[in-house]
Amino acid sequence: MSDLRAVDVIARKRDGEQLSRAQIDVILDPETPDYQLSAFLMAVRLRGMTESETVDLLEAMVESGERLSWPWPVADKHSTGGVGDKTTIVLAPLVAACGVFVAKMSGRGLGHTGGTLDKLESIPGMRTELSVAAMRTQVERVGVAVCGQSADLAPADGRLYALRDVTATIDSIPLIATSVMSKKVASGATRLVLDVKAGEGAFMPDAASAGELAALMERLGAANGIETHAVISSMDEPLGRAVGNALEVEEAVAMLSGAGPADLHELVLSEAAVLVGDADRVARALRSGKALETYRRWIAAQGGDPDAELPKAPVVADVAAPADANVVRCHARRVGDLAMELGGGRLVKGAPIDHAVGVVVHKKGGDRVARGEPLATVHSREPVEPERVLACFQLDPADA
Amino acid sequence: MSDLRAVDVIARKRDGEQLSRAQIDVILDPETPDYQLSAFLMAVRLRGMTESETVDLLEAMVESGERLSWPWPVADKHSTGGVGDKTTIVLAPLVAACGVFVAKMSGRGLGHTGGTLDKLESIPGMRTELSVAAMRTQVERVGVAVCGQSADLAPADGRLYALRDVTATIDSIPLIATSVMSKKVASGATRLVLDVKAGEGAFMPDAASAGELAALMERLGAANGIETHAVISSMDEPLGRAVGNALEVEEAVAMLSGAGPADLHELVLSEAAVLVGDADRVARALRSGKALETYRRWIAAQGGDPDAELPKAPVVADVAAPADANVVRCHARRVGDLAMELGGGRLVKGAPIDHAVGVVVHKKGGDRVARGEPLATVHSREPVEPERVLACFQLDPADA
Repeated sequence: MSDLRAVDVIARKRDGEQLSRAQIDVILDPETPDYQLSAFLMAVRLRGMTESETVDLLEAMVESGERLSWPWPVADKHSTGGVGDKTTIVLAPLVAACGVFVAKMSGRGLGHTGGTLDKLESIPGMRTELSVAAMRTQVERVGVAVCGQSADLAPADGRLYALRDVTATIDSIPLIATSVMSKKVASGATRLVLDVKAGEGAFMPDAASAGELAALMERLGAANGIETHAVISSMDEPLGRAVGNALEVEEAVAMLSGAGPADLHELVLSEAAVLVGDADRVARALRSGKALETYRRWIAAQGGDPDAELPKAPVVADVAAPADANVVRCHARRVGDLAMELGGGRLVKGAPIDHAVGVVVHKKGGDRVARGEPLATVHSREPVEPERVLACFQLDPADA
Repeated sequence: MSDLRAVDVIARKRDGEQLSRAQIDVILDPETPDYQLSAFLMAVRLRGMTESETVDLLEAMVESGERLSWPWPVADKHSTGGVGDKTTIVLAPLVAACGVFVAKMSGRGLGHTGGTLDKLESIPGMRTELSVAAMRTQVERVGVAVCGQSADLAPADGRLYALRDVTATIDSIPLIATSVMSKKVASGATRLVLDVKAGEGAFMPDAASAGELAALMERLGAANGIETHAVISSMDEPLGRAVGNALEVEEAVAMLSGAGPADLHELVLSEAAVLVGDADRVARALRSGKALETYRRWIAAQGGDPDAELPKAPVVADVAAPADANVVRCHARRVGDLAMELGGGRLVKGAPIDHAVGVVVHKKGGDRVARGEPLATVHSREPVEPERVLACFQLDPADA
């Protein structure tokens, strides 16, 4: 059937035609070489996909691997990637403390955005590779498990994602939506909250496209039996104040202990309310210390020591404001890049990272800062030139 | 320089921006993996290239390998590929017989279109692999040499072409133009006639895009010191009557002997007049037998026996018209596909071909045919169902 050669399917998408499920299967065939997949991805990036094609692509990606199912409802969350986003580390034990099971597979950081697994691994002893059986036992016992993505779930997504990353085809709404949802459907989630980031530090530069992505993922979730709610949050500034693996775990624990920055607090509580279905119960679980207790049991269940000291960087230095100023903005993307350059992130997959380094920002947009007052504290191996840190901030001279 | 990563160059082309020569060099770097090249090719196919980018791409492709130069002016021709196109086999000795040197590198057939090298190799003993030194000696002695493309000339083109073939990015005007012209510039041609085919059997479906391609290649040739003239010819019907390797050589020899079909005659004479610059001289060289004599010396110089019998297929059968009819059209593409299916062509590079098989069409658009009169003669290994041959013709019942 000449209609079903990969090159012919690519030509159809190139010409803006709608593909059938059978044609999508030809493209996702493991035998289709990378160079054909990447031409296809660019055609999709430039020509788009209809809703029906997107539904078919998602189904084909899920069917490319195993599909888990759990004997109880399972909550999950996903963020499209941000700077300083330690939400999962707070949200997972908080939701579990409210009696909703969390069995979550997370990823690693790449570029200016961090990954939950890297953050968790800054806790001495913490294991992030769990078998499905181990995950199940742990969820029944502790209520929560967070581990690495199994390569057996939606393997087609892993292949597509790796190619998108190097072929300038990341920022395609149907490709982002199917990538996220294929892993959620395959991992057996039944309730899902999606945090779609908009802004400079995110995939989606503007609120309109973030809204389009969010709505598409909600429809794809519903079509696959997952109660899906998306929230759109800004990624113009870092989430919270800490950016860097151990520093973010510290901030997450601070929030579970009743402190923590307001923006993180607000985002986590709204997501937890969606997953638990009862905002008061969530607030109680946090206030009572039950969420922190669940966090400690969770970390211990995965081999981590919740009381151990986290890795510390040898150089810890404040960077002061050069003059009185109003802070217009703390640039998420620049802070993310700086943390990566300090060694806290990676440019290529599989590269090792330094858990101790990072940046804690003390001022964000709307704040005032006095000359000599710290704008940020840098945790690093070597002293860092203050200009690199100041470049993360947009300051307006304060009125006299 | 983060600006010069391949993924960033792909992103620029994806967004319709103009690339610099340095950015094009990043893409053509031999280290750039196929999957990035093919995403780039799809972006070019959908976003196009400006004239200045096309000039830069051509230059970069030429500089990817060796560049020949000859001590005398050298004529060359190129056809964008057709069914039954045996022009080179007549044109090369005809032009040489007029005192203009021909040093030509040709290709092999793929899909429904044949290649000059395959056709020449149906002559017993004929060698088509010549070193540059051997080519030079032969041109000085005989006036003409035709051989395979050296892998050392414009190797970037070889790589791009192989990828375009399997990623649905063949039909891009800047990519076709640079592919053709990179080999002509690298092989040291100084006069060039381009036969741009338009119609169903060709890359360019319509005359407008064929004209655009022709004009672009003329400008690229002129910019590189090659006197370039393009002619646009129809590829709705096969050129001449014979389609198949040995059958086409026979038809070429017939034309050199003073016979041959009118359309082939007309195309070859007009191309030769362009290259020689004197239509009368061309006509005399053909009429006097000097062109045929040059053909015989050329074939012999490359080890071929111009008097040897060509391979013959075991089954030779006429296919008759089922009723009186007016022939509306003989479909080039269908005849090309039929000849390929008989074994005279190949679907994948490097596959062997059968030199003996093919089709000779006796009627083309505008002809009348009587019931029982042959429409075509099929040369094959096994008997062929007449319906397959009849499907190549569009017939209108004749008026009573």
